Amino acid sequence: MTSGSSFLLAARQCEIAELEHLARTGELVGAIGRLVHALQRERGLSNVFLGSHGSRFADQRLQQVAECGLAEQQVRAQFDLLDTASSHVRNGARLFSRVAVVLHGLDGLAQLREQVAARAVSTREATAAFVKLVAGLLAVVFEAADSATDPAISRALVAMFNFMQGKEFAGQERAFGAGAFASGAIDGAGQQQWRHLVESQQACFQVFCDFADAEVLRVDHSSRDASLLAEVDRLRRVACAGRPGPLDANLSPAWFELLTRRIDAMRSVEDVLALHLRTLCEDRIAQARGELRDQRAMLDALARGALDPGPEEATVYGPHLERSMLGMLQEQSRRLQAMGDELDAVRATLNERKAVERAKGLLMAHRQMSEDEAYKALRQMAMNQNRRLVDVAEAVLSLAEVLPGRGR
Amino acid sequence: MTSGSSFLLAARQCEIAELEHLARTGELVGAIGRLVHALQRERGLSNVFLGSHGSRFADQRLQQVAECGLAEQQVRAQFDLLDTASSHVRNGARLFSRVAVVLHGLDGLAQLREQVAARAVSTREATAAFVKLVAGLLAVVFEAADSATDPAISRALVAMFNFMQGKEFAGQERAFGAGAFASGAIDGAGQQQWRHLVESQQACFQVFCDFADAEVLRVDHSSRDASLLAEVDRLRRVACAGRPGPLDANLSPAWFELLTRRIDAMRSVEDVLALHLRTLCEDRIAQARGELRDQRAMLDALARGALDPGPEEATVYGPHLERSMLGMLQEQSRRLQAMGDELDAVRATLNERKAVERAKGLLMAHRQMSEDEAYKALRQMAMNQNRRLVDVAEAVLSLAEVLPGRGR
Repeated sequence: MTSGSSFLLAARQCEIAELEHLARTGELVGAIGRLVHALQRERGLSNVFLGSHGSRFADQRLQQVAECGLAEQQVRAQFDLLDTASSHVRNGARLFSRVAVVLHGLDGLAQLREQVAARAVSTREATAAFVKLVAGLLAVVFEAADSATDPAISRALVAMFNFMQGKEFAGQERAFGAGAFASGAIDGAGQQQWRHLVESQQACFQVFCDFADAEVLRVDHSSRDASLLAEVDRLRRVACAGRPGPLDANLSPAWFELLTRRIDAMRSVEDVLALHLRTLCEDRIAQARGELRDQRAMLDALARGALDPGPEEATVYGPHLERSMLGMLQEQSRRLQAMGDELDAVRATLNERKAVERAKGLLMAHRQMSEDEAYKALRQMAMNQNRRLVDVAEAVLSLAEVLPGRGR
Repeated sequence: MTSGSSFLLAARQCEIAELEHLARTGELVGAIGRLVHALQRERGLSNVFLGSHGSRFADQRLQQVAECGLAEQQVRAQFDLLDTASSHVRNGARLFSRVAVVLHGLDGLAQLREQVAARAVSTREATAAFVKLVAGLLAVVFEAADSATDPAISRALVAMFNFMQGKEFAGQERAFGAGAFASGAIDGAGQQQWRHLVESQQACFQVFCDFADAEVLRVDHSSRDASLLAEVDRLRRVACAGRPGPLDANLSPAWFELLTRRIDAMRSVEDVLALHLRTLCEDRIAQARGELRDQRAMLDALARGALDPGPEEATVYGPHLERSMLGMLQEQSRRLQAMGDELDAVRATLNERKAVERAKGLLMAHRQMSEDEAYKALRQMAMNQNRRLVDVAEAVLSLAEVLPGRGR
């Protein structure tokens, strides 16, 4: 019959197993960050290649495809390490389902690249395909953050996810701005969409700042090149601050180059984030193993005392050890409780994204929209009403009850 | 290299593994319900035995101790079935930690019973020991409800937990009322505490009604004996509605008998709840297995089509199967999303209890209180301010930020 003390130890072993799983997840997230960065570059190069009718970036694009291939291999290798057979990975159903979507997207890359090479696809379509693939990869990171069981690691993953998502908005801004400048003009809707990309970035980086470790923030801060950022802001104002109208097409390469430098700087922050995450996991695992060792030693002493109490030991250690056992039980309960509470608080920040996903699902079900259409509809509402995407999503959800059909 | 389709299947297998784990948890919860009931009876009999200076219920108490032993064996057997070695049980650290607390409590029962038999313990102390043990058992059920990954099963477990908790408040009311009547008088504080037990019961049964299956509610409704309930209400009014003052000590046995009949009727509802939970798990497992089978067949067809496309098949099935794969991916993502959303909504009802636990922890940390003292302080505040326990807890938590010391 299993004793209380073995459950106490099993609880601690569960914690260690979950921390080890988080460490592996951290490696996966790091590999995803590198692949996303490579795909963002390829997207940018493909855009310019297509937009220039094949005259620019032809070689660079091919080089980048090769780099993407290497990064893809690393992500696939990390996917292989996920223990699909154990069927006990936390949040496994959702995580594996997201991975399946990503693998399906990666399998379609070869065909997309052939079409880009043959210029048999529009810039818009190619961009959309890359955006979708990156979104799928970020969704894997999101599930990882949502399933973390340790508050400190959860904070690090939330910071990481938001940084990666913010960087992706920056990547979309690079493509959007390069296209707008190259076209020689911008209309009101274009300005609105551009501003929306800037605001979405800022919202993500705000969450990142709220959750990232102080050292990571220092690196992030020192990676910012003030003159570069000032120039980015200047070009944004050129395009968006005034009335809709003509743009200087010659600014397109400069804009592309500026944003590329900015995004590459972000990439180096991501590396620090990944390193911080790894160190954090290693520290927490070492700590938990140490606590397990102490607890086991204490329980052994307790068992010896209970089984073979010498005349003195019984008096001296008996009540003392009995108090120790109770103390251990109470301390462990309290610690797990506190961790759970902190975890709930960290995870609450992920709920904004969940609200947007839920609102999207609602529109898809009730208006027979595709996922893309639903997202665009939400974004359009947010831009028209000058509200945050999450507020619009909440408003849509609050209407759910009065919408006809498809109730529970 | 693992393919997208194997992750799709792995996601489904994860769901099945989690459902099987929930089915085992359901058996454990059923066994806990039987042990709690047996302990509630023993608590009641021990109270009367002690209160009557050993003159009443001596034999019945011994009989009940034997019954408790049988129920305890079943719970211990269920604990043994928990897969502590896998280290991957969902929410394992918290669940195992709660189990360790329960086992420690069960190990202490023999000593408590010796003290009761020798009348070497006060009624109050004996009651407190039983209340604590039952609370520990209910905490295991709470963790089970909090870790369920299927919304329907989560609803059933939330209903079950609240019913069991409501029944426990009824058990405490039985003991409190029997003691109050037997003492021949009640003061204002006693009336307040009695009313609080009634309100706590009602709050639990309200949540139960919100979450229980329609059939379970029918059984619950038909198990209610209107004349019995009317008599319970009448005796409550006798004790609590008027001014504090003398009570008829002869009403004590009648009250005890009435409440015992009421609690025994609740026990039969718990059996129906357990049966419903088991059926639900079996249905969901069968359904998920069927879906896995269908999905696997579809993916096999897809692989055959991709690997060996006959001239016609390629045209006819190729794009069709490609759409199927995408359709499967989208459908699965959407389903998991919807399940997650529904789960969040169900779990939100568990947050009230979490707020109380959190507030308790806060008081323990800042006021150097024991767990019991912290709970009593909260309950006293609730009674004094005539507010719900959860509202007082929220108020305490909102003060957390301005309290000195012990920050994060």
